[in-house]
Amino acid sequence: MRLLSGVRPTGKPHIGNYVGALRNWKLLQDEGHECFFFVADWHALTTAYDDTKQLQDHTVEVMRAFLACGLDPEKSVLFVQSGVKEHAELALLFSMIVPLPWLERVPTYKEMKQQLSEKDLSNAGFLLYPVLQAADILIYLAEGVPVGEDQVYHVELTREIARRFNYLYGPTFPEPQAVLSVVPKLPGTDGRKMSKSYGNIIPLECSAQELEKSILPMVTDPARKRRSDPGDPNKCPVWDYHKAFGISEEESQWVFDGCTTAKIGCIDCKKLLLKNMLRELEPIWQRYSRINARFAMEVIAEGNRRAKRTAEETMALVRSRMNLLF
Amino acid sequence: MRLLSGVRPTGKPHIGNYVGALRNWKLLQDEGHECFFFVADWHALTTAYDDTKQLQDHTVEVMRAFLACGLDPEKSVLFVQSGVKEHAELALLFSMIVPLPWLERVPTYKEMKQQLSEKDLSNAGFLLYPVLQAADILIYLAEGVPVGEDQVYHVELTREIARRFNYLYGPTFPEPQAVLSVVPKLPGTDGRKMSKSYGNIIPLECSAQELEKSILPMVTDPARKRRSDPGDPNKCPVWDYHKAFGISEEESQWVFDGCTTAKIGCIDCKKLLLKNMLRELEPIWQRYSRINARFAMEVIAEGNRRAKRTAEETMALVRSRMNLLF
Ligand code: SF4
Ligand code: SF4
Repeated sequence: MRLLSGVRPTGKPHIGNYVGALRNWKLLQDEGHECFFFVADWHALTTAYDDTKQLQDHTVEVMRAFLACGLDPEKSVLFVQSGVKEHAELALLFSMIVPLPWLERVPTYKEMKQQLSEKDLSNAGFLLYPVLQAADILIYLAEGVPVGEDQVYHVELTREIARRFNYLYGPTFPEPQAVLSVVPKLPGTDGRKMSKSYGNIIPLECSAQELEKSILPMVTDPARKRRSDPGDPNKCPVWDYHKAFGISEEESQWVFDGCTTAKIGCIDCKKLLLKNMLRELEPIWQRYSRINARFAMEVIAEGNRRAKRTAEETMALVRSRMNLLF
Repeated sequence: MRLLSGVRPTGKPHIGNYVGALRNWKLLQDEGHECFFFVADWHALTTAYDDTKQLQDHTVEVMRAFLACGLDPEKSVLFVQSGVKEHAELALLFSMIVPLPWLERVPTYKEMKQQLSEKDLSNAGFLLYPVLQAADILIYLAEGVPVGEDQVYHVELTREIARRFNYLYGPTFPEPQAVLSVVPKLPGTDGRKMSKSYGNIIPLECSAQELEKSILPMVTDPARKRRSDPGDPNKCPVWDYHKAFGISEEESQWVFDGCTTAKIGCIDCKKLLLKNMLRELEPIWQRYSRINARFAMEVIAEGNRRAKRTAEETMALVRSRMNLLF
C-alpha cells in the first residue's frame, strides 16, 4: 500500500512526535509499505507565518529526526514539502472545485481558531489547510494516510475532493483511507497538553542526563502528596509515559500494586520509566549523533527528486484532464 | 514603468476584449513601458471549472488575439499563467498572511456570487481569486496594473498584501497602482451586457461580411420604431460603438443631427460605424491571418521562459525572506 504522512516543523522534534507519529511510521515502513514521509513546512506557516526565523532549522531538524528514528531513505521517500512545488499547483487547482462550506465545517477549523485566538488565525491559508493537505496526499496517489484521530475528518475531506475531481474530469485519484494506529497520547511533563509555550516538552534528541532532568520532576497523581499517600496510575501522566515506552506485564503489576498501596515512591516509578525510555531512545540518540545537518540536506535533495518525479507524473495527468495548456 | 495585466480565456476573444483591454495594452507597450501580458487560464477556472473542454483552445486564441492586436513579443513578455508555476507557489504563501475578512469584503465577490448563482460559485478558488491576482502582479514586481474600474479594489488589495508581506518579512514588493484609462464600455449587439450566453458578442476575428451581419441588425434607440421617428444617440448602443471606434467630430455632428431629427436612418448610421470599424479592424484581421496556433505556441514558449526567469528571481527572494528551505 502506498502511504503518505507529514510532520509540521513548528519546533525541534520532541518525544510526542516520536510516540505519536515517527515510531509508527518506522513500523509501517518495515512492514514493506511504499512510504512517502515529508516535512510539511508550508503547513507550518498556516499558524506560524509571523515567526519564521527558525523555520529552516526546524525543517532540517525534523528530517534528522526522521533518520534518527530509523526512517530509511533507501526504503521510503523522505522529502520537504516546499521542495516539491507541484503541491502548490495542485492545491490551487483543487481550490477551484472545493465548495467553501466543505472547509468551513472542518472541526479543527473552528476549534483551533478558538484555542489560538490570541493570534490572528483567520487567514485564508488556515481555511485552505485541508485543500493543501488533500493535494499532499493525492499528488502521490496515496492509498493510506497514517494519522491521529483528530485528522480523520481531513482524510475524509480528501476522499471527497478526490471523488469530486474524478466526477468532473474523469477517474484520476484513488480515495485514500486513514490508517489509524493506537498511538498513546502523551501529555507534557506538567500533565497539561504538550506545548512549546508551556515549556513541558521533552526533546527527542537529548542525553540520558537531560532526560532524567525532565522525567524526575514530572507531575504525578496529585493524591500522592507524601510518599506514604497511595495514588492511582490512571490519574498520573507518568503512567501515560509508561504505556508509551513498552512497560512489561510484570513491571506494570509492580507499578499498580506499588502506587495504589504506597509501597513504591514516585521516584522508584520514574526510575523504571527512565530505564525503559533509555532502552528505546538510546539507539535513536546514537543514530542522531551520526546525522548532521549536512547529511540531512543530502537526504532531502534525493528525496525531493524522487517525490518530484511522482508528483510531476500526477500533475501531467491532472493538467490534461482539466485541459490546461501547461 | 513595469506593467502587468491579463485576460481570462473564457471564450474566443471578442470586440469587447479589444476595446476594453488589448487596444489599450498596445498603446502602453508602444509608449515604452515594460509590459507583462498574460492569458489567465487558472483564473478562468474560478468560474468555469466545470466546463474546460475548450480551455486550451481559448488560451491559444487569446494569445493569437494579443499578437493580432499588435502586442509584440520583442517588446512585451507575452505568456500563459499555467506555464509559470511560481504564481501558484506565491499565491499559496500569500494565503498564509491574508486575513479572510479582506477577501470576504471584495465587492466583486458578493456581486458575482449573486449574478451567477445558478452555478455553484461558492468554491474556495473564487474567494481566493484576489490572492492569486496579487501573486500574478507582485511576482513581477509590477508597478502598474492596467485594469477597468471594477478591478480597482483588487489592485488596492494587492497593495495591502504587498504592505503586509513587507511588514512581516522585510521590504520585498512595490505597491502597484491601478493604471486606469478611459475605455468605453461596449454593450452587446442587443443592448444588454456582453455575454457568451446571450449570443450578443462580436468575435474579434471575423470577416467584413460577418461584421456587417452583426452590426446591421443591432438594437438601436427603441424610440425609432419607424424611419421617420427621431431618436437619441445617448440611448442607443450603436452610439457606444461609434464612440469606441474613432468617430470624427464631423461624423459625430452628422449622427446627432440626423438621428434627433430623423434625417438619417439607423442603417445609414450603422454603415458609417462599419466604415470606421473596418478601418481599425482590417489591419488586425490581416495580422490574424498570418498567426496560426503553432506560431502562437512558439510565442508562448518564449514568453513563458522570460516570465519564469523574473518570477523565479522574485521567488528566490520571497523564500529567503520567509526563511523557507526551498
Ligand atoms: S507511583 Fe508512578 S504511577 Fe503512581 S503516582 Fe507516582 S509516578 Fe504516578
Ligand atoms: S441613428 Fe444611429 S444613433 Fe440614432 S438610433 Fe439609429 S443607430 Fe442609434
